[in-house]
Amino acid sequence: MADDRSNFPSDTVAGNGLLDRRAFLGAGAAAVTAGLVADPDSALGADPLPVEEWMKTPGAPFVSYGQPSKYEEKVARIWATAPGTTGTGTSRTPHHALDGMITPNGLHFERHHSGIPDINPDAHRLVIHGLVKRALVFTLDELTRYPMESRIAFIECGGNGQLLYAKEAAPVTVQQLQGQVSCAEWTGVKLAVLLQEAGVDPKAKWILAEGADAAGMSRSVPLAKIMDDALVALYQNGERVRPANGYPMRLLLPGYEGNMNVKWLRRIKLTEGPTMTKDETSKYTITLPDGKSLQFVYPQEGKSIIARPSPGLPLKGPGLYEISGIAWSGYGKIAKVEVSADGGKSWAKAALQPPVLSKALTRFRLPWRWNGGPAVLQSRATDETGYIQPTRDSMIARRGNRTIFHSNAITSWAVSDKGEIRHVYA
Amino acid sequence: MADDRSNFPSDTVAGNGLLDRRAFLGAGAAAVTAGLVADPDSALGADPLPVEEWMKTPGAPFVSYGQPSKYEEKVARIWATAPGTTGTGTSRTPHHALDGMITPNGLHFERHHSGIPDINPDAHRLVIHGLVKRALVFTLDELTRYPMESRIAFIECGGNGQLLYAKEAAPVTVQQLQGQVSCAEWTGVKLAVLLQEAGVDPKAKWILAEGADAAGMSRSVPLAKIMDDALVALYQNGERVRPANGYPMRLLLPGYEGNMNVKWLRRIKLTEGPTMTKDETSKYTITLPDGKSLQFVYPQEGKSIIARPSPGLPLKGPGLYEISGIAWSGYGKIAKVEVSADGGKSWAKAALQPPVLSKALTRFRLPWRWNGGPAVLQSRATDETGYIQPTRDSMIARRGNRTIFHSNAITSWAVSDKGEIRHVYA
Repeated sequence: MADDRSNFPSDTVAGNGLLDRRAFLGAGAAAVTAGLVADPDSALGADPLPVEEWMKTPGAPFVSYGQPSKYEEKVARIWATAPGTTGTGTSRTPHHALDGMITPNGLHFERHHSGIPDINPDAHRLVIHGLVKRALVFTLDELTRYPMESRIAFIECGGNGQLLYAKEAAPVTVQQLQGQVSCAEWTGVKLAVLLQEAGVDPKAKWILAEGADAAGMSRSVPLAKIMDDALVALYQNGERVRPANGYPMRLLLPGYEGNMNVKWLRRIKLTEGPTMTKDETSKYTITLPDGKSLQFVYPQEGKSIIARPSPGLPLKGPGLYEISGIAWSGYGKIAKVEVSADGGKSWAKAALQPPVLSKALTRFRLPWRWNGGPAVLQSRATDETGYIQPTRDSMIARRGNRTIFHSNAITSWAVSDKGEIRHVYA
Repeated sequence: MADDRSNFPSDTVAGNGLLDRRAFLGAGAAAVTAGLVADPDSALGADPLPVEEWMKTPGAPFVSYGQPSKYEEKVARIWATAPGTTGTGTSRTPHHALDGMITPNGLHFERHHSGIPDINPDAHRLVIHGLVKRALVFTLDELTRYPMESRIAFIECGGNGQLLYAKEAAPVTVQQLQGQVSCAEWTGVKLAVLLQEAGVDPKAKWILAEGADAAGMSRSVPLAKIMDDALVALYQNGERVRPANGYPMRLLLPGYEGNMNVKWLRRIKLTEGPTMTKDETSKYTITLPDGKSLQFVYPQEGKSIIARPSPGLPLKGPGLYEISGIAWSGYGKIAKVEVSADGGKSWAKAALQPPVLSKALTRFRLPWRWNGGPAVLQSRATDETGYIQPTRDSMIARRGNRTIFHSNAITSWAVSDKGEIRHVYA
């Protein structure tokens, strides 16, 4: 194994080993840890590799709908449910095991308030009524004749990262702490098109969106957002929306709090004011230190997390690693992600993977040479509006810690001299 | 049902009912077919919809890895295998049932030359040898420490659309005719980085890429393409590459003929010239009318298909529809897609769904008012290099019809006055 560290270029860009992107290139030495073939001429020049078992017999047949390798079964959602229920709770995306911007449909996080309804799409209806000129009822077939739009967008639960409000840093993984955010390409009909057809009464300033689950989950949304970019989403990453994500249709409100993106959408009612449902009064409000609550806080603000390295994925000795994570903002595009390996003393700009899209996950990456000593890894997102992801101290100073919602503070991973990684406050 | 066609705006943009995008908006009348609620005040103002069965009991519990709705089981790949085999053949993506640009991993088309190998990722190795300074062997773990890049890219089988070379138009669906193209976000290590580490001998001008399947499928690739944009892909739409698509790693050559994107990649050998494997001599060459063959035709040229309407999806009466399809080019970005409803007599520009990415599928859409008479729907792609998708006559004139490869001619769907749709030559 080649790990000749004396050959590393000295092109650090911030403290504790953060490197310029070119650090992986050039140098003429094995930059990471690839095995050298002892005698390439005889071993590989003449011929080849051992013929593995799986090359000696014909492989498996075709199937109509494919699945991941059996060796990847640990790449799975984890979930927690409310006492006495099996379907009320949250599942989380395993970001430590994924890469890119798209979350595969089988691993998209979920938040259900009474399980996943088994909806017959032929019987499902979407009604638009209230302050409209003509109330309308749509079947799924009718909706599919409307013009479609596609949009790659993140959805994040309003409660994602809530453990950062706790007094002590919980010993959790990135999946446990920040797994309630995912990203997909959603395709559907602009709700504005349907409202235009119904005819909006000028008195209407809000809508109520209601789902067809047993909880009748419902939220109020300002009409301005609906007319701007709301979609009635029918497709998720190319195929029909999965049952766990709202089959046969869900509301997509790019950048807004997850549960406003109402799943199993059955009703849009136009109203003068907000409806004050249970899901926006007793829940999904931000309780401040003085006991008052902030209601109707919609956009998920600028945020980022480091997915790798992260707790549960110990480093295998000093050397080069890639720090890789995701950033997003409900306000628009990510403009910049900075990474620190010394707990925020110094920062370096990470590379952003194109295409950088508004209100979508953006993958960031930065090379790091771990010297074998202690380190604290952090990432900090800035979006195109200039919004900067806050430190935990700053978030707590502003909002206190009586709430569990809209936690977008910087997350810190401490690396020990053994390469073990744990969640800390730093 | 509202279908007051006298209210349709007269904003046609080409013959036989092709409309401006705004045709779906405004007009004050139900543009498509939504049901009017007879008495909205009593039926919906006071209250609501019937409470469906699935709202009366708690829904289904969480699962670690989600699946599509049982009502979508017909949205599946179809496949054909060589006589006496179960795993040698091709499966096809159901584009008539999908939307957007991303193909979900379970429905990505496949081309296997001897089934899907069951590869233990811990035992798998990637070797780089031949004309290099130092032959290198990589484990999967080692590769994951390198810098990653993501890229949304189509892959199309060199034989996709081959029935267009047949003398008579085959009575097939879009899936049967053109289902061997799919698109995913691929993430992996640039092969150029690994070659730089191995040290390229100046004599090397080509590489051989070999897969770890029982067929030992292998292709030669010019080194220039490898140094430009080749990836050793480890992730597909966020998760590890599926077994059917090369688990644990495949070569990605954006825009190039599908089978050059070697799956189950085990060997990269640098060579002076092409290796002349069976997969680039007896197959995947273009036999010309005079019996000679074109070898090493790499890029999949500019192409588009209309996914909806298409055979098997009959129109349900006159009125507004959206024509929706996909376009792609191995040369770069799609610049323009034109649609005809009169068999090519007149054309209108379709809307392209952003982001329009190089060597990725691009969704196009155009509204159409079907008047109930016969129509022939076609689409024609132009890419950023100025390449224009040819008519079938032009393709046959250039290449003859002794080959089955690189068929990128315009596909035509005839609509009958009953709304039935079939594949035709027009």
